[in-house]
Amino acid sequence: MCKIITSIVFLVLSLYLTAEDGNRLWLPFSVNKQQPSVVCNLKESPTIEIAKQELQKYFSAEKITLTLTKGSVGDGYKISTNANNEAIIQSTSELGLLYGAYHLIRLQQSGKMFPNTNISETPSYQRRILNHWDNFDYSIERGYAGKSLWKWDELPSIISPRYRQYARVNASIGINGTVLNNVNANAVFLSSEMLGKIKILADIFRPYGIKVYLSINFSSPVLLGKLKTSDPLNKDVCKWWDSKVKEIYSLIPDFGGFLVKANSEGQSGPQDFGRTHADGANMLAKCLQPYGGIVMWRAFVYSPSSDDRGKQAYDEFVPLDGKFADNVIIQVKNGPVDFQPREPFNSLFGSMKNTSLMPELQVTQEYLGQSKHLVFLANMWQEFFNSDTYCDGKGSYIKTITANQKINAIAGVANTGGDTNWCGSIFAQANWYAFGRLAWNNELTPDEIADEWIRTTFTPDFETSFIEPVKNMMLSSWETCVNYMMPIGLTGIFTCNDHYGPEPWSYVEGWRKDWNAVYYHRADSIGVGFNRTTTGSNGVSQYFYPLDSIYNSIDACPEKFLLWFHHVPWNYRMKNGKTLWENLCRAYIQGVNNVREYQKLWDRLEPYIDNERFLSVQKNLKIQTNDALWWKDAALLYFQTFSKQPIPYDMERPVHDLQEMIDDSYSGKIMKR
Amino acid sequence: MCKIITSIVFLVLSLYLTAEDGNRLWLPFSVNKQQPSVVCNLKESPTIEIAKQELQKYFSAEKITLTLTKGSVGDGYKISTNANNEAIIQSTSELGLLYGAYHLIRLQQSGKMFPNTNISETPSYQRRILNHWDNFDYSIERGYAGKSLWKWDELPSIISPRYRQYARVNASIGINGTVLNNVNANAVFLSSEMLGKIKILADIFRPYGIKVYLSINFSSPVLLGKLKTSDPLNKDVCKWWDSKVKEIYSLIPDFGGFLVKANSEGQSGPQDFGRTHADGANMLAKCLQPYGGIVMWRAFVYSPSSDDRGKQAYDEFVPLDGKFADNVIIQVKNGPVDFQPREPFNSLFGSMKNTSLMPELQVTQEYLGQSKHLVFLANMWQEFFNSDTYCDGKGSYIKTITANQKINAIAGVANTGGDTNWCGSIFAQANWYAFGRLAWNNELTPDEIADEWIRTTFTPDFETSFIEPVKNMMLSSWETCVNYMMPIGLTGIFTCNDHYGPEPWSYVEGWRKDWNAVYYHRADSIGVGFNRTTTGSNGVSQYFYPLDSIYNSIDACPEKFLLWFHHVPWNYRMKNGKTLWENLCRAYIQGVNNVREYQKLWDRLEPYIDNERFLSVQKNLKIQTNDALWWKDAALLYFQTFSKQPIPYDMERPVHDLQEMIDDSYSGKIMKR
Repeated sequence: MCKIITSIVFLVLSLYLTAEDGNRLWLPFSVNKQQPSVVCNLKESPTIEIAKQELQKYFSAEKITLTLTKGSVGDGYKISTNANNEAIIQSTSELGLLYGAYHLIRLQQSGKMFPNTNISETPSYQRRILNHWDNFDYSIERGYAGKSLWKWDELPSIISPRYRQYARVNASIGINGTVLNNVNANAVFLSSEMLGKIKILADIFRPYGIKVYLSINFSSPVLLGKLKTSDPLNKDVCKWWDSKVKEIYSLIPDFGGFLVKANSEGQSGPQDFGRTHADGANMLAKCLQPYGGIVMWRAFVYSPSSDDRGKQAYDEFVPLDGKFADNVIIQVKNGPVDFQPREPFNSLFGSMKNTSLMPELQVTQEYLGQSKHLVFLANMWQEFFNSDTYCDGKGSYIKTITANQKINAIAGVANTGGDTNWCGSIFAQANWYAFGRLAWNNELTPDEIADEWIRTTFTPDFETSFIEPVKNMMLSSWETCVNYMMPIGLTGIFTCNDHYGPEPWSYVEGWRKDWNAVYYHRADSIGVGFNRTTTGSNGVSQYFYPLDSIYNSIDACPEKFLLWFHHVPWNYRMKNGKTLWENLCRAYIQGVNNVREYQKLWDRLEPYIDNERFLSVQKNLKIQTNDALWWKDAALLYFQTFSKQPIPYDMERPVHDLQEMIDDSYSGKIMKR
Repeated sequence: MCKIITSIVFLVLSLYLTAEDGNRLWLPFSVNKQQPSVVCNLKESPTIEIAKQELQKYFSAEKITLTLTKGSVGDGYKISTNANNEAIIQSTSELGLLYGAYHLIRLQQSGKMFPNTNISETPSYQRRILNHWDNFDYSIERGYAGKSLWKWDELPSIISPRYRQYARVNASIGINGTVLNNVNANAVFLSSEMLGKIKILADIFRPYGIKVYLSINFSSPVLLGKLKTSDPLNKDVCKWWDSKVKEIYSLIPDFGGFLVKANSEGQSGPQDFGRTHADGANMLAKCLQPYGGIVMWRAFVYSPSSDDRGKQAYDEFVPLDGKFADNVIIQVKNGPVDFQPREPFNSLFGSMKNTSLMPELQVTQEYLGQSKHLVFLANMWQEFFNSDTYCDGKGSYIKTITANQKINAIAGVANTGGDTNWCGSIFAQANWYAFGRLAWNNELTPDEIADEWIRTTFTPDFETSFIEPVKNMMLSSWETCVNYMMPIGLTGIFTCNDHYGPEPWSYVEGWRKDWNAVYYHRADSIGVGFNRTTTGSNGVSQYFYPLDSIYNSIDACPEKFLLWFHHVPWNYRMKNGKTLWENLCRAYIQGVNNVREYQKLWDRLEPYIDNERFLSVQKNLKIQTNDALWWKDAALLYFQTFSKQPIPYDMERPVHDLQEMIDDSYSGKIMKR
C-alpha cells in the first residue's frame, strides 16, 4: 500500500518537476500571469526600476506601493500588507526599497505571505561584503566551482549575462559589496587597463547596490609604479597611492575601498620597511578618506617563529589598538587559526575597543569538504556570533560588539565560480545564502535560514515529508562534519596541499612547524591536544575573565574545545564517564553514521525533487560517506599508534590501512623522497 | 575491570606467542623433550623412517607400535591407544602407517588425544590429487601466492627444501598425487630434459606417498616429436606416445598418469582430427595401462555456439559413456559452469554409469576473493558432496557414487605458491587442508575440519573465547561471500580479466557471448536470471527425476539456485514474502555486514594470536569489507537500472557511482575504446 502511494506521489510530482541545473539558486521561478500594479513616490531610477520589475514579475498581489521616506539614509525597510492583497514597502533609501521588494517576494515564495504582515528590518552590518579569492589567470584560490566569474580578456567588449545575475542574486539577500580579486593580490588589478574593465562591472552592479572593492598588493608602488620602495611613510609612495585612488574614483565614484593582506604568507607589507600595520593601513586610509572609501586590513598574520600560531594576531594587533584611522577596519577570521571545522572565537574580538573589527567568515568550504560535503555553515557562524567575549562583562556577544562600531562590516570568502550552479553543489549554495542573510541580520537562527533556503530553492510544499527532513539534515550537518573530521577541539589534521582529506601524520623535516599536522594535535604516549593553558602557550590569557579561567581548566573547558586548549591524557574521563580515547572513537563513527543517515534520508526524498538535483546531491553524499570513513580510519588508526588502545570492539572496524594512507598522502610522498 | 583482565591476558599470552610467518601451516611445532620409543614389525624403509621420526619428534607417549598387517593393500589404518600411554597403528601398507602417524599427531596436537581411543580409517578416494596450474615460466594461472614452487632452472642441481616440505604437508592430510603443471599445458614438460628434473621431484615425494602426474599438451607429437599430426588414431602418433610413456616410467616407475584439457579454450584435442574425446583418451590410456598409469580427461569443454554453456559438458560426454578405457577417468568440475561462488552440481555426476568420474574442486579462490577474502570452502564442497543426483533413486549422493567406481579419484586445483606462507594468506591454508581431509573422507563435516585446522594452526586452547568464534566465522564465510558476490543463484558477474571484482555490466561486442556477464544474468525490465527450464534452454532435463521437475518449478526450486534455473520477475514473491528485488538487496547488505562482523570478531581475538598473523588477517578483512561494499554497490546499482525500484530505504546506501565503476572496469575500458 505504502509503495502504491509512493508510486502515485512519484507520478504526480514528476509532472511538474522540471530539470534544475542549480543556476537559479534561491531566486523565484514562477512568473506572474497577471502583473500587479507597482507605484512609487519617486521619479524613475535604475534601482527602483529593478524593484518594480521584480515585483511585477514575481510578486502576486493587487497593488504594491513603494514609498521613499525621510530620515537618516539606510538599507532598512518596513513592509506592511493588508487583507485587500496590497503591500507597502517603505525605506529611507532606494536600495532599502529594493531589499524590501526581495524580502516580500521571498515571503511569498516561501509560502509565508500572510495578510496584515508588519515587518521592520535594519541590517546588522552596513557593509556586507563577499571576498573573491579570484586570480588574474581565472583560477580561484580555494574555489571549487570552476573558473572565475570575471572574464578579464572579454571585458570591456563582451559582457557576460552572469555579471548582472551575480548582482541580482547578491542583492536578493542584502549583500552590498564585492572584493573582486584574491587577497594574495596581483598588482595588475590596479593598472589603468584593468580599472577600465572593473569600471564596467561596477556599472552593472551599481543599481543592485553592490559596491566594488579591490585587494591590493602592498608593493604596488614598486611593481606597478616603478618606484624604488613601497614604504608607506615615503612621500612618493603616498603620492602614488593618492593618484591611483583618484584614478579609481574618477572611474568608479562609489568604489568601496581596499582589502589588504600584508606581511602574511609571503605577501609584502609595511613591516618590510620597519613600519607597523597601522602605518600601512593609515597611509591608504588617508587616500581613500575623501571619497568615503575604507581600508580592510587583515589580521591573518603568523610568523614561523611563534610558539603558538593561535596567539599571534592578538599579539601583533592589540598593541596597535587606537592607532588606526577611522576608515580602517581590521578584518579578523572567526577563529584564531584558519577556518578549521571548529575553532573557538578569535581573541581579538572584544580586545580592540578603539578599533573597528570586521568578522571574516569563509563561505567556501576549504576545510569542510569543499563543494563535495553537505555542511551547512550557519550553525558554525551562529556559534561564533553568539560567543560571549565578556569584554564588557557578561553578554558582550560578538554579534553585538561587531555591529556597534565606527564601521560595521562583515566579509565572507565566496564559494562562487563559473560552474552552472555557481557553487559546485546545490547545498553549497545554502552557505552563500546563509552568509548574506546573517550579514543582514546576525540574530537569524540556522533553522530560520535553512527553512527559507529550502522553501525558495526547492519547494514551499511538503512541510513534514520534505522540508523538515532536509532541514534536520542541514542543521546537524556541521556537527556531523566536525565529528568525522576534527572532534573535541582537534584541529589542523588536514592534508597539507589541498586541505581536503586527513593527514594527521604530516611532519616534514624542514617545513614550517605550523604547516605540519603534528604541530596542532601534539599527540604522544600521554595524550593529545595543544596545551594553551597557563602551563603551556598561555593562549587562554588572551581571553577576558572568566573565559580565561574556564578555558584554562580541563574540567570547566567546553568539551568541544577540549583539545584546542589542553593536552589531554588518553584515559581522561570526560563528562559522559568514558575516556577521551573512547569519546574520540565514538565521535568519528558518529560522524560516519550520520552521513549514512543523510544518504537514506535523501534517497527517500526522490519523489519531491527534480532528477538532476536529486542525483547530484545523491552522488555527493556517496563521496561524503566514503570521505568520512577515510577521515575516521586515518585519524583513529594514527592516534591509536599513540593511545595504544583498541578501538571499542562494538564499533565498526577500520577498512583502510594506516601505512597505505600515509604512503598515499601528500606529506607521505614528500617524506619518502 | 574487564580491561584489566584483557590487559593481563595480553601480557600472559604475549609471553608464549612467537612470530608466525605462516610457513608452518597446520604442522606440529612443539617438539618432544623426551622421545617415545617407536617400534615397527618391518625392516626399515624411507616411509617408515619418516613415520618414526615424526612420531618421535612430535608425539608424546611411552611407546608407539607400528604394525604392517596382511590383507588387501590400501591407505587405511587403525589406531588404538591405552591407559598406559601407548599407541598402536596398524595398516596393510607403509603409507597407511604414515597416515596413521600423522593422524595420531594431529589428535594430540588438537588436544583430542584420549586413552582408549579406537579409530579405523579408510579413504574415500584412492587418488587424492592436487592440480597445479603452474607454468614453465614460474607464473601460476589463478595463483595468488607468488611464483611456482618448482624451480626448473635450479633442478636437478639445486634442491629447494620446499620440495620435501611440500610432500610432508600433503602427506599429513593424505594427499597422494600431484599434477605438477598447468592444464593449459606447455609441451616442453614432456621433453627429456624436463623429465630428468621431474624425476628428482618424484624421488623426493615418493617416501611421502606423493605420485607425480603431468598435464599434457595433446599436440605434443607435433610440437615435441616433430610429427606432422597428433591424430590419436595415427600409428606414428601412438608410437610416439608409447615411447614417451616408456621413457617416463623408466625414470619414474610409479608415475601417476596424464591430465588432459582437450578441445577447450583453445587447447588442441582429438576433435581437431575428427576424433572423439574417447578416441583421444583411450589412445593415451593404452600407453599408460601396462604401468598402472591413468588418464584424467577433463570435461571442462564449451564452444562459443552453445545456447547454454551449462549444458555442454553433459551434451558432449554422455553420448560417450561406456566408450572410455578402464584406466580413463573423466575429471568434472563440481558445477556446470566454472567454479562460481555457488553452482548446482554438474549434471554429468550420475549420468555416466559406465565411466569413472573424478570431481575437480578449486582450492585456489579464483572467483571467491582469491587470497584476500576469508572464505572457507569446505561448506561449498560439502553441499556438492551431499547433493543427491537421484541417478539410482533417492540417496544417490555424489559423495557415494564418486567413491564407488572403477577408479576413485578426486582433484583439487592448488592454491600454493612460493610465498612464505604457501597460500597467500593464513585462512587460504584452511582450504588446502580441507581439500586434503575431504579427499580422504568426504563425510567429514566443515565443522570438524575447521575445528582440526584451527587447533593445529593456532592453538588447541581457549575453546570458547578463540576456537568457537574463529570457527563460526569460517563456517559462515562461504555463505557470506555468496551473499555479497552472487546470491540467489546469480552467476558469472565477475570481472572479465582477473575474476576478482564485480562486472555485471560486461558486454563487449565481438566477444564470445559466454565471456560476458550479461550472458549469465540476463537482466531485463521483467526480471533477472538464466531460464534453464523447459521454456528456456531446458538445462533442467539433464537432471534425474525428480530434480528436473524441482528445478523446473519456480516455486519448488531451492532459492539458492533460483536465478540459475529461472528468469525471475523483480516483483516475484520469495518464500519470506518479500520480492526478489528486496531479497537481492538484503542478501548483498547481509554479506557486507557479515564481513564487518568478522572484523570485530577478529580484532577481539588479538590477545590469542601472534602479532604477525593477527595483522595479516586484519588487513585482509579490511580489504574484504571494502570489496564486499564494491560488489554490493556494483550489483545493486547495475540491476537497479532494470528493476527500476529503490533499494529498501532502511538499507545502508551505496557509496560508489555506477558509471564510475563501469568506466573503471576492464570491459568498461574496452567498450570506451
